[in-house]
Amino acid sequence: MSAADPISDFETFYYNQTLDHFNFRPDSFSTFQQRYLINFKHWGGSNVSAPIFAYLGEEEAIDVDLSIIGFLSENAHQFQALQIFIEHRYYGKSVPFRSREEAFQNASTLGYFNSAQALADYAEVLIHVKKKLHAQHSPVIVIGASYGGMLASWFRLKYPHVALGALASSAPIRYFDNIVPPEDGYYSIVTKDFKEASETCYQTIKKSWSEIDTIASQPQGLSFLSEKFHTCRPLNKSSDLKNYLDNLYCEAAQYNSPPTYPVTVVCGGIDGASGNDTLTKIFAGVVAYTGNRSCYVNQPRNLSETDMGWSWQTCSDLVIPIGVSNDSMFPAYQFDLKDYIKSCKAQYGVPPRPHWATTYFGGHDIKLALERFASNIIFSNGLRDPYSSGGVLEDISDTVVAVHAKNGSHCLDILNANNITDPGWLVNQRKIEVKIIKRWIAKYYADLQAFKK
Amino acid sequence: MSAADPISDFETFYYNQTLDHFNFRPDSFSTFQQRYLINFKHWGGSNVSAPIFAYLGEEEAIDVDLSIIGFLSENAHQFQALQIFIEHRYYGKSVPFRSREEAFQNASTLGYFNSAQALADYAEVLIHVKKKLHAQHSPVIVIGASYGGMLASWFRLKYPHVALGALASSAPIRYFDNIVPPEDGYYSIVTKDFKEASETCYQTIKKSWSEIDTIASQPQGLSFLSEKFHTCRPLNKSSDLKNYLDNLYCEAAQYNSPPTYPVTVVCGGIDGASGNDTLTKIFAGVVAYTGNRSCYVNQPRNLSETDMGWSWQTCSDLVIPIGVSNDSMFPAYQFDLKDYIKSCKAQYGVPPRPHWATTYFGGHDIKLALERFASNIIFSNGLRDPYSSGGVLEDISDTVVAVHAKNGSHCLDILNANNITDPGWLVNQRKIEVKIIKRWIAKYYADLQAFKK
Repeated sequence: MSAADPISDFETFYYNQTLDHFNFRPDSFSTFQQRYLINFKHWGGSNVSAPIFAYLGEEEAIDVDLSIIGFLSENAHQFQALQIFIEHRYYGKSVPFRSREEAFQNASTLGYFNSAQALADYAEVLIHVKKKLHAQHSPVIVIGASYGGMLASWFRLKYPHVALGALASSAPIRYFDNIVPPEDGYYSIVTKDFKEASETCYQTIKKSWSEIDTIASQPQGLSFLSEKFHTCRPLNKSSDLKNYLDNLYCEAAQYNSPPTYPVTVVCGGIDGASGNDTLTKIFAGVVAYTGNRSCYVNQPRNLSETDMGWSWQTCSDLVIPIGVSNDSMFPAYQFDLKDYIKSCKAQYGVPPRPHWATTYFGGHDIKLALERFASNIIFSNGLRDPYSSGGVLEDISDTVVAVHAKNGSHCLDILNANNITDPGWLVNQRKIEVKIIKRWIAKYYADLQAFKK
Repeated sequence: MSAADPISDFETFYYNQTLDHFNFRPDSFSTFQQRYLINFKHWGGSNVSAPIFAYLGEEEAIDVDLSIIGFLSENAHQFQALQIFIEHRYYGKSVPFRSREEAFQNASTLGYFNSAQALADYAEVLIHVKKKLHAQHSPVIVIGASYGGMLASWFRLKYPHVALGALASSAPIRYFDNIVPPEDGYYSIVTKDFKEASETCYQTIKKSWSEIDTIASQPQGLSFLSEKFHTCRPLNKSSDLKNYLDNLYCEAAQYNSPPTYPVTVVCGGIDGASGNDTLTKIFAGVVAYTGNRSCYVNQPRNLSETDMGWSWQTCSDLVIPIGVSNDSMFPAYQFDLKDYIKSCKAQYGVPPRPHWATTYFGGHDIKLALERFASNIIFSNGLRDPYSSGGVLEDISDTVVAVHAKNGSHCLDILNANNITDPGWLVNQRKIEVKIIKRWIAKYYADLQAFKK
């Protein structure tokens, strides 16, 4: 693996993107500037139809991806590949309408913000770039992470004439429409991660929730908890604390990566605290995870663009049912679709379409549907990643394959490599992915030669 | 081949269809009643996962298809198949908004009228029907004719999780974005058909156009032509006559089917007329084709819903560039995209998107794109059909195949069979198609059995 290219090697471009690809009303023809960045450094050029690696942005500004996604630049040299990072509509600098405020005002302006439109954006940008570079026969490999991984796999399925293959890292495409029972999803893996790290840690967390509730319901209970957890602001309700802890455990599990393995760190704090007091242990876990701070929990925080965007996306076309089972370390919770619809409608004025994702993209009985259709998709997962519960973990066919790492975490395979601390299994997972992509491209070049005759 | 089922065997249903599948603006959630008809007679039922034949309607009311499309009912018995005919949005009884007038008022109401939306409609209806019949594992074969054939092939490409395979009859999916040079398209095959039927007929037609123009430019020329052609109303301009003849030759070529072979009929009239006068010969061709009438040409006619609908469709997402080459029997004509865009914009207030069809559906280098992707599509064509110029005439892979009949005409293979007059090659073409579909279904059942284990 060569080192990642510096961000300064990327040139920024803007594409005049159509607001609504699937409608011909006058306002559908509005356009917005969609940002993409290209690194030409390693490209072998159009004469040899050298490959194009295209990173399909997910729910954040593309700058973030540029700084943390290593797979493209680490492999561009050996593939002689062009690198392109494309920003997702409504994020970063690719926001339609005159401002983010206007774009996020209500459903009338948010309506254009969905994954089918985003995929069409990517198709237009890639076709435009290939044309501009006279590279119409350069094979395109699309790469994405998490939601972007879903987009990458869906892009290969919907636009096979634009992308030759897809590397879909940690893409929970089976996380819709109850393909996976909601209570067997995200939280079941978080629980498993903690249980595997430490049974006592798991037990402590499991019993902490009712303890928090009990204390909170007593007079002065919230001040007691505020003091106990050194909160930045006094707690107004126990859910502030519980949500904080919930998020912390989920984040630790999702990004439970080497060399530190945050779940082990949290459990180290919890198990290592002296005494028998559950909440003392829990707080020790917080400190172990975040490091020593002047205060914890309940820190004032503005909603990020990802918070705002993802909130809309999961209330429109990407309804992801999340539940918690009885044997979880979290309080059990049954997902109620009707309630979910009601709360989305209250927030945005329009209801979500919970069945649309599987109508448009499929997902039910996926092996049966795709084993004799489609090709060239890698579904990569780390089995410690809670999102792997909605991922494709078994090969669908010879070329639609699952590559997973038992100890891997969310999107770890395509994040920046660290030559010193990356364990062998991770290095190996990346090597396998590269090898598969090489095979696709070699076959394509043979086809291309035959085609040109 | 068994005989076709009577229309009375079909039950009519309506599905509450979403107006805009790809947007979440409040008005996207409007719905309309989409008509579909089901024939349960031969269906083997959900217990044995018996197949579903789904006819995807094109640019007319579905009643028309029910009366002329024989393929489904002729084969339903041997497949134990359910038959379903689904009407295309904005046609027949499946018109959104309160009335056809309102729906066709302007681009604001017409904007939702395009093929991507229509495909999503079909997906929703089919998923709904399968669910209602508990037939989620029944393989669906989609069938379509002409534009509907394009929809059928695109449906298999975009919704492989809903349809197992597609029979796309006379589907000119390469007729976009200059994949086929415009002057090598439709009119080149019409010319070939006439030339093959009779070289003198071709010559007579070829020289008739300038003769019409010469006469029309003289004083009293138009009345002379009106008398010569026994027109129903006096001609106001020579193009009325020329368009009529153009349409007549095209129709004869497109539906140049046994047992009568209309091109042969027209040329019989033209070649058989006594004397040397070109226009006398042309008129004799008209009479031979239409039969004896009280008057010809320039008959008052209201625009049909197909005229109106197709006019919008070819001015929005389905821009089909049509030109005429110099060696055609028609006056040469170079397709000018800029002019075309201008005239669409003048008519509807919004421009067409001439590159969208290939962006969304592909079509360029189709073999290269699909030979290792996709499966189970039959592209059937009659090589005398002018639309075969934009069709897929060579196998793309083992399961994406071209089945063509040298003497076939537009959609002939799926029209009602005629056991007495159908020639052997036509009976054979249909048998091949049935055999291929049987193979898909047999493989699917084997997969299903393995999947259920």
